[in-house]
This record gives sequence, C-alpha cells and structure tokens, in this order.
Amino acid sequence: MSQELRTRIFEELDALILIDPHTHIDALSPASQTLVDILGYHYYTELAHSAGMPREQIEEPDISPREKCKRLFENLGPINNTIQYSWLIEMVQTFFGFEDDHVGADNWEALYDAAEGKMNGAEWSREVLDKSKLEAVFLTNNFDDPLEGFDTQVYVPCLRSDDLVFHLTNREVLGRLEEASQSTVSNLESLRTAIGAIFHQFKEKNARACAISLPPDFSPTRISDGRAAMALDAVLNLKLDASESDRRALSNFVFWTLAEHCAAFSLPFDLMIGVNRGVYADGVFQGQDLYDSRVSMIQYKELFNSFPQVTFPISVLASVTNQELTSYAWILPNVVTNGHWWYSNTPTFIEHDAAARLEAVPRTKQIGYYSDMYKLEFALPKFAMYKRILAKILSERFVIDRRWKEEQAIDFGKQVLRGNVETVFGYSN
Amino acid sequence: MSQELRTRIFEELDALILIDPHTHIDALSPASQTLVDILGYHYYTELAHSAGMPREQIEEPDISPREKCKRLFENLGPINNTIQYSWLIEMVQTFFGFEDDHVGADNWEALYDAAEGKMNGAEWSREVLDKSKLEAVFLTNNFDDPLEGFDTQVYVPCLRSDDLVFHLTNREVLGRLEEASQSTVSNLESLRTAIGAIFHQFKEKNARACAISLPPDFSPTRISDGRAAMALDAVLNLKLDASESDRRALSNFVFWTLAEHCAAFSLPFDLMIGVNRGVYADGVFQGQDLYDSRVSMIQYKELFNSFPQVTFPISVLASVTNQELTSYAWILPNVVTNGHWWYSNTPTFIEHDAAARLEAVPRTKQIGYYSDMYKLEFALPKFAMYKRILAKILSERFVIDRRWKEEQAIDFGKQVLRGNVETVFGYSN
Amino acid sequence: MSQELRTRIFEELDALILIDPHTHIDALSPASQTLVDILGYHYYTELAHSAGMPREQIEEPDISPREKCKRLFENLGPINNTIQYSWLIEMVQTFFGFEDDHVGADNWEALYDAAEGKMNGAEWSREVLDKSKLEAVFLTNNFDDPLEGFDTQVYVPCLRSDDLVFHLTNREVLGRLEEASQSTVSNLESLRTAIGAIFHQFKEKNARACAISLPPDFSPTRISDGRAAMALDAVLNLKLDASESDRRALSNFVFWTLAEHCAAFSLPFDLMIGVNRGVYADGVFQGQDLYDSRVSMIQYKELFNSFPQVTFPISVLASVTNQELTSYAWILPNVVTNGHWWYSNTPTFIEHDAAARLEAVPRTKQIGYYSDMYKLEFALPKFAMYKRILAKILSERFVIDRRWKEEQAIDFGKQVLRGNVETVFGYSN
Repeated sequence: MSQELRTRIFEELDALILIDPHTHIDALSPASQTLVDILGYHYYTELAHSAGMPREQIEEPDISPREKCKRLFENLGPINNTIQYSWLIEMVQTFFGFEDDHVGADNWEALYDAAEGKMNGAEWSREVLDKSKLEAVFLTNNFDDPLEGFDTQVYVPCLRSDDLVFHLTNREVLGRLEEASQSTVSNLESLRTAIGAIFHQFKEKNARACAISLPPDFSPTRISDGRAAMALDAVLNLKLDASESDRRALSNFVFWTLAEHCAAFSLPFDLMIGVNRGVYADGVFQGQDLYDSRVSMIQYKELFNSFPQVTFPISVLASVTNQELTSYAWILPNVVTNGHWWYSNTPTFIEHDAAARLEAVPRTKQIGYYSDMYKLEFALPKFAMYKRILAKILSERFVIDRRWKEEQAIDFGKQVLRGNVETVFGYSN
Repeated sequence: MSQELRTRIFEELDALILIDPHTHIDALSPASQTLVDILGYHYYTELAHSAGMPREQIEEPDISPREKCKRLFENLGPINNTIQYSWLIEMVQTFFGFEDDHVGADNWEALYDAAEGKMNGAEWSREVLDKSKLEAVFLTNNFDDPLEGFDTQVYVPCLRSDDLVFHLTNREVLGRLEEASQSTVSNLESLRTAIGAIFHQFKEKNARACAISLPPDFSPTRISDGRAAMALDAVLNLKLDASESDRRALSNFVFWTLAEHCAAFSLPFDLMIGVNRGVYADGVFQGQDLYDSRVSMIQYKELFNSFPQVTFPISVLASVTNQELTSYAWILPNVVTNGHWWYSNTPTFIEHDAAARLEAVPRTKQIGYYSDMYKLEFALPKFAMYKRILAKILSERFVIDRRWKEEQAIDFGKQVLRGNVETVFGYSN
Repeated sequence: MSQELRTRIFEELDALILIDPHTHIDALSPASQTLVDILGYHYYTELAHSAGMPREQIEEPDISPREKCKRLFENLGPINNTIQYSWLIEMVQTFFGFEDDHVGADNWEALYDAAEGKMNGAEWSREVLDKSKLEAVFLTNNFDDPLEGFDTQVYVPCLRSDDLVFHLTNREVLGRLEEASQSTVSNLESLRTAIGAIFHQFKEKNARACAISLPPDFSPTRISDGRAAMALDAVLNLKLDASESDRRALSNFVFWTLAEHCAAFSLPFDLMIGVNRGVYADGVFQGQDLYDSRVSMIQYKELFNSFPQVTFPISVLASVTNQELTSYAWILPNVVTNGHWWYSNTPTFIEHDAAARLEAVPRTKQIGYYSDMYKLEFALPKFAMYKRILAKILSERFVIDRRWKEEQAIDFGKQVLRGNVETVFGYSN
C-alpha cells in the first residue's frame, strides 16, 4: 500500500515543471560537451581519488576528454554504491539511452560516443532543459560577470559574493571590483559605491538573489564606520599582510553592506553556512573542502534581527545544524530553509532533515531543493532523488501517520518544489 | 500487518489514564474560556507571525478575543502543514465536534461560538480532564505562588526556580522572595533560609519537583561560601549593575543551594537544558527564544556526581543533545530522560530521540512525555501525537525488529507513559 | 514483501565467516568460564547500577561468581528493554539451549549450571568461534604484552597505545616501556627507539593495527624536536607534576611518533575518537566513562594531511559526529569508517549512521562492524544485531528505494562485513 502510494505521489511531483534556484551553470556553456564534463565533476573525481586513484592520473594536464573518462570509468567500481554513482547511471540512461545498470571498463566507450553525438547537437541544452522539465535555472555569477549573451529569464543571474567578503585582500579581486564597478576603491564611501554599482548591474539583469558560502566560525556583526575605515586602509595598504583582525573587520563590514544592499534592492540573501575551504590540501579540484559541524545559527542573531526586510534562504552543510535551521525558520519571518547542501545532499540526511522541516516550518518558507550543478544534465537525477525522498516522507509521515489526503500531500510537495521558488525569489515568467 | 499492529498498540496506550508531569497550567483557570486561549498559544502566533502576519496585528491591545481569533484563523493557511496545526484540528474535532479537516476564514466563526458555549460550562475543566483521560497535571509555579484554591492532588505544584537562579539581581524578584519567605535576605545564611522556607511551603502543598530552564552556556559548579558571600553583597548593592562574574557566581550558588534543598526535601530537580532567551527581539509573546545546540551534558558532571541522592529528570532542547542525555541516563543512576521539549517536540525528532532512549536507558528511568501546556485542552492532541509515535516505535523496533510480544511492548509503553511518572515523582493518588 | 526481503538478505549475510577487527579478548582466556564473565561485562553492571542496584552489591570483593550472577539476575528486570539485555538472551539461547525469553530470579540457576558445564569443556573457545562463524578476532594488546602462547592467525595482535600517549607521566608505564623495549628512555632519541622496538615486536607477531582511544579535546599536532625534548625532560623529572602544557606536548609528540611508525611498519592506525574517562567517579568498573559530543574531525586535519600513506580506520563515540566521519572518508583516501562504537552501538544510531555511510563512502573504505568484546560469546549477538540492521538498510534503502538487485545488495553487505577487513588490515589466512 505504502509503496504504491509513494509511487503515485512521486509521479505527480515528477510531472512538475521546475525552477532550479541554485546552480553553478555557466550560461554560455550550460550543458556538457563530452562525458568528461559529467565525469569530471568533483563528486566523481574526489570519490575515485578517495578510493585510491592517484590525483596525478585524474588531473594529468593535456590528456584528452576521452582518456580522462577512460581512466575514471575504470575506477568507478569502488564507488558504485554511492548515490552520486546512481546519478550518473540515471543520467546516462535517460539522456543517452544507456541500458546497463553499471558503467565501467567494459562498456564505457560506446556510451562515450553516443553521449558525444548527442551533446554535439545544436539544441542539446534545450533538449536537456526539456527532458529535465526545467523552466529556468538560477546561476551563481561572479560580481564582475558581464551577464551578457544569454536569456536571463532562463538563466537567472545571482550575485556570488564570497570574493567581496573574503578576498578583498587579494589585489586581483580589488582590481576586478574597480573595473566592474567603474570606480576607484579608496575609502568606505567608494567601497559602498562600488558594491552599489554591482548590485545595480545585477538587478538590471534580472538577478534574483545574492549568495555566499560561509565558514563555520563566521559570525556576522555590524562594524562601525570608524573601525571599518581603519580596516579598509590596512587592507588596501597591506593586502594579504593585513592583520587577521583587520581582515575580519573588513569582511564583516562588506558582509553587512551586502545585507544593506539586499534590503535596498529587494534581493534575498542566500547564506550557505559551514564550509572550511582547503582542509585536504592534496585533494582533487573542488575536492578539498570539508567542515566543522560545531556551528550555530545563534551566530547570525544580530544579522537576522537587523534585517527584518531581507529574506535569508539558508543552507547548512551539516545535518546536525538542520534542527537549528528548522527552529529559526519556524520563528523568524526572514529565515527560509533552502535545499540540502553538499555533504547533506545524500538520501539519509535529506530524509531526516526534510521531514523535520516539512512538519514544523510554515509551508511558504521552505525551498525544497536546488541542484547546485555545474552542468545541466545533473538536475534530472538530483531532483529525482529529492522527489523520491519527498514522496516517501509525504506518504509515510503525512498520508499514513497524519491521515492527510493524497492531494493535500501532493499540493504541499509542489509548493516546496516550485511554488516557493517563485514567491521567495520573486520569480515569474 | 505493521499498520494494524501499530494501531492495536496505540489503542492500548490510548486507553491509559495519564498524569501530565510538566505543564504551565494555571490551577485557578486551567481550561480555555474562548478559542483565543488556544489560538493565542505561542505555537500559533509565532508560526503565523513567521509566515508573514505582522506582530501588531496579532498583539494589538484591546482587541476582543473574537477579533483576535478571526485574524489568526485567516492566517493559518501557510502553517497548515505543521504538526502544531494538527493539534488544533484534533482538539476542536474532539472537544467541539468540529467536522472539517481545516479551519480558516470560511468556517471559524461557528467553531468559535460552539467552543465558547462549551467552555462556559461550569464543569468545562473537569470535562476536558475526563475526555483527555488526565488524572492529574503537574504545574510550574512561581516561588511566591500561594498554591491555594485548588486540589493539589489534581493540580500538583512544582517549584519553578528560574527567577531565583537568574534574576535575583532584579529588585522586584528579591522583594518577592523576601515576602514569600517572610524573611530578609542580607547574607548567605538568610538567603539559604529564605530558599528553605520556599521549599517548605511547596512541600507542604504536595509539590513533586523543582524545575528550571537553563541556557546552553550554563555549567553548574559549587561556589565557596566566601566567594558566594562576595557575589551576594555585590548583587544586593548593585543589582543589575553587578559584574557578570558576580552574577554568575550568585546564580551558581543559588542553583547549588536548590540542589541541596532537593536532596533535603526529597524532590526531583527537573532540568530543561539549552534555551537562549530573547534571541528574536521582535518576536511575538513567548516566540522570541531559540538556542545554540552546542551544549553538552558534561557541563553537569560536577552536579551529577555531587548529588547522587537527587533525581534529575532532564529535557534537552536540541535533538543533537539527545544521545548524550541517553548515555548519561544509561550510566548515571540519578539521570532520568524526560519528555520531548519544545523545538524537539515534533514527530521526526521525537521518533529518533525516543527510539534511542527506549533501547538503551533502563525502562524505569524514562518519562515518556509531558505536554508543557498552558491550557488543559492541549494535553489531548499532544499526548496523542506522542502515543502514535510510541506505538510506531514499539511496533517497528520492538515487535518486528526484535520479536517482542505485543503485550511486552504495550507494558513497556504504559510504563514510560504513566508508571514512571508515579515512581520518579513519588506520585500516588 | 520488504519483511521477507530483509530476512533473505540477513540469511545470506549471516552465512558469512567473519573476522572481528576490534576486540578486547584475552587470547590466553578468550571465552567465559562462568556466566559471571558475561554478566560481569560493564554493559550489564552499569545498567543494573544505573537502575538502582548499589555498586557495593555488584562489586563486593570475594563473592563467588554464582552469588554475583544471582544478584545481577535479580536486578535485570528494569533493563530488560535494552538492546544489551537482548544480546544476553540471544547468547544464552544460542550457546546453552536456553528456551525462555527472559532470565531472572526465577530461572537463572539452571542456566548458570548449564552454562558452567559447557564452558568447562576443553574446546569451549573453539566451539564459540565455530558457532559464531568467527575465523579470527583482533586483539587490543598492551604495548608490553609478550604476545605468546596463542595462534596469532586466530587471535591477531593489535597495539593499544593509550598508555604511551597519555600515561608516560606514570612511572610504572615508563618502566614497562623500558622493560618491554629493552632500552632506557632518557631523551627523544631513545624514546623513539623504544617505540620502534615495540612496533618491531608487534609486527613480528602478525600485528595488524595500532589503536588508541582519544578524548574529545585531543587535536594532534606535530611538535618540534626542541619542544618535545623539553617536554620529555619535564615529564621524566616531574612525572605527574609536569605542567599541563608539557604533558600535552609530550602526548602529541608520542602520538605523532606512533603515526610515523604506522607509516614505517605499514600498519593502520585505529582512532577511536571522543571518550571522556572517569566522568562518573562512583560508577562501576568500566562504567564511568562518558563524553562531550562537541568534537570535530577538523581537529585531525594536520594528521590526515601529514600521513597520506597511513590508513586511519576511525570510530566516533557520538552519532552526531558520524556525518563528519562520513564526509572525511568520502574525501580523504586515508580515512576509513570503522564500526559503531559503544554509546553509538545501539540500533537507532547504527541504522542512521550506517545508512549515511553506505550511500556516500566508497564501498572499499567501510569496516561495517567490530564487537569490542571482552569474551568471545559476545560476537554472536552483537554481529547479529548489526547484520539485521544492515539487512534492513540494504533492503529498504538499496533494493526498494534505489532498485538494486538483491545480489548486489548482498555483495555489498558482505564486503563491509568481511572483505574490507581483509583489505584494510592486510589480513589473509
């Protein structure tokens, strides 16, 4: 009974046209060109590396896409239990008519060729969007991205602000800011002006959010102008040699300024809380970051209280932080739960975390899922994973445990999958 | 199979007459007088507020109960997914014969009138107790509550000690203590005497516990009389201007003194660990508190070792602390697990937390549930929620996974629901 | 359907011959001689004590095994809900033909006699190994254990290094090290030599791992030779009076030196992270340790980066640390997940923790389970518990949720139960 119910709910959810509210898609090259764009995704390289494949073999310069794929396919055996591997199989079955339930040394080559054939089609990205039932995907653009050459109704810009907050000590970043904002940054006022110019440009291009990923020890606080001016001077003069205290003060000042601009420009501020960068120095590309789960939403108390007019869609890296996120979204009007991020984007954690949110956070304040993908092909299997889990929770915990009608459960599922993306980010097409 | 088993176990548990071992009931006005006493509960106001309803609309002074209910009912749509909303529906269906499965703008008014009619009946509290199968409810009384005018066998006093521990810096609190204890507090000795007088009064009135809620950074420690005397002097002289260090020392001294009196008066000391008060300054009444889940039972090591003769029924605010609670109750004879508190009082967390306790803590040392209610009507749906989850755990994890007999599972369920309340708190009627 | 599937998978897993990769077995006396060796296990004494049995009654000197068993059996009622009690029942049913589903005051005596009869048989340990389908068990030997008088292919030595890291301040420990290594420890060089001699001896005796349990605040770091020399001098001169700073520096130096020797001798280094010793001073033997779950794998960042050539099979004490362990094993080639330790060795935590690992960590890098037992009889019920949970996860989360074939799931289960023990620890018979 429960199994069929789950299937029925899944099918209803699966019929929905989606908006993906957080990705790393390059709008000028949204889909894959060969399988290496898929297999080179850090989820596969880092797992293959973790299972024993030398980094030098994976990241050898100048090897062909085919050769790199060959090497990786030959090393997928030890990771064929992972959910990430299942995304791969679902992708190649759906997009390339692959029929085996595994892919490896014995059968990768025909797949590679079939995929290349499809990917070279002129309308490949459009096909992927259609097959994935994707109406639009949100991007994560660098602050100096020109945001040109694509349809911003389909590829919706969002301002990635990590560099501004954490890397103004870097001369190159500062240079990019000055160029992008067409201004010189020499004091607080001109820094604010530069940031304002960036927001203005993004808003003109249909930007729907400002986004940032934050380390576990970050605890935003308002910095006085006097202190901030000192810190900025130090950073402008000393760059990477500026003291930890000055760098931190400037980071806080910029962060707070971003929140002020989110208020002024009516943009949600996506916070992705908890990542420690570069923990594993010898890891593969994008496979070096980890975390410390000892983080608390209380660190954001001052921020949430200071910006009631800004919506904060929040992702947490560790499942142990999910209850705090749930509770803060239950109480604070400006906190919204946002998807299942990275190390928490696996079924057991999604199931536990989503169930807790669905039953305690107002239904209007939950963004069910985003794919976080770099290439369009990933939305399909990632969303499918989420929809299966959502259908499981809705059938077991709402229809069975709480005697909801099936339609009620489906409506709720659709709202967290799509409706809330529209209302929270003010998206309409 | 599993579904019917679960239902059978639930029905057996549901037949039990209960004692609710922790509530905030006002014994002189235990039940609701209009629906506003139900809908004004912070669980609804804070969720409606979080979903977008302005606080001014909710808390406008001098609006009638009917008007306040109208406003809230019109704003329940966005929270109709929550377990809290389901309590409301179950309550009004059970007590007022309400037949719809939702309540909102279209159908609240008849319900309001029906409820008011019932609530005005002379025997309403008795009816609620009977329908809820409640034999007695424990209260949480201020230390200067006269505890008069009610049957202390049904409304069982418990001493709430938050003010004594954390607010003696407040002149009004000190005044209340002096008046209630009929003594002047000028030094350690007279402070001890005053506290002793309070315990004496409570014990005379059938008190069954001392209770306190504690912030996550509280770590009780024994303070020497010399240090405590200095701290008390500072607080008596400077009140709120006393140093953080003196205030903390005095809090610790009073807390320790309470534990000593729990030992002397044979009262369990309910500890409710983990709340940060006033995190969201602009929240509605009772909807401002949150937490930091980075708390450990190790903070109570000295306390547990120092008072082997005192039973500590313990609630933790965050589910991530539940394993520590489980382990400490498994090892320490004086630690008892106590219910599912506040932000952990939702099905997903209850299921995970209760399952962990049921299989690792001696069966005699688990208080299954308390309602924490302010009005009597809430016990029924809250306990029903718990009993359904308990039946689920017992059927799936004990009868199916561990091949227990159905009767064994039911007996165990009854013990955590009722038997242990009697033995842990020395309650008998 | 799901129930039969689970049973079929369990039966396949249950047919496997096992290697137990972490126990505290005494190879010279591996099995129990009377029931007191089973009932005296801390899991029973601490639970009976926690439920109210006085320590003096449990640990009265000079009582006979029979009397001690009698007392404990009479006090098992309050703990008959626990999973630990279920191990006892499964053990006595399997090994001694016990037919009741409870054991207590009314029926313990016949059981005691039956057990004693069996245990006195000359081939008892062999019978237990056979009935438990155990091919070999790893030991946890003190560094000065002569490792003689037993078959090291069946009882496989592992070097327990807690004393070396944390107790060199203890004159007796230092004496034992000097004796075991046949050297005098007077400076860094001779300390390194002594440790090297120990490793050499263990390696000669087929040792398969170095193991250590670590407190939550331990954060290994490389200590310069200069600093380490100063610290060693202080500890050699002052012993327990050495400063906290010197003791900590020496602990770190020794720990790092162990890691270097694990590299040199190709031994995995089992880290068991999170225990606070002696929290409950009045607890029974081995029933005094608890923990602080605020621990992070980030504390081991420097270690993992410094020793890529050493495999670290890691156990964490608290389930809330399991996601970090999972993520670190997903990224770092030298981190392997290892079993379910102590306070996390109960079904609810195992289920949640194992599910998270099985779907995100390479299948080659997961050691499913070890018994941690002191007497051979415990492997059977403990492994059976794990195998039942593993079968549940594989059937529900792999076959049903992810449409795996049943054989795939069984193969995966066998790999984490047995295959990886062979490959990770280089065991072959």
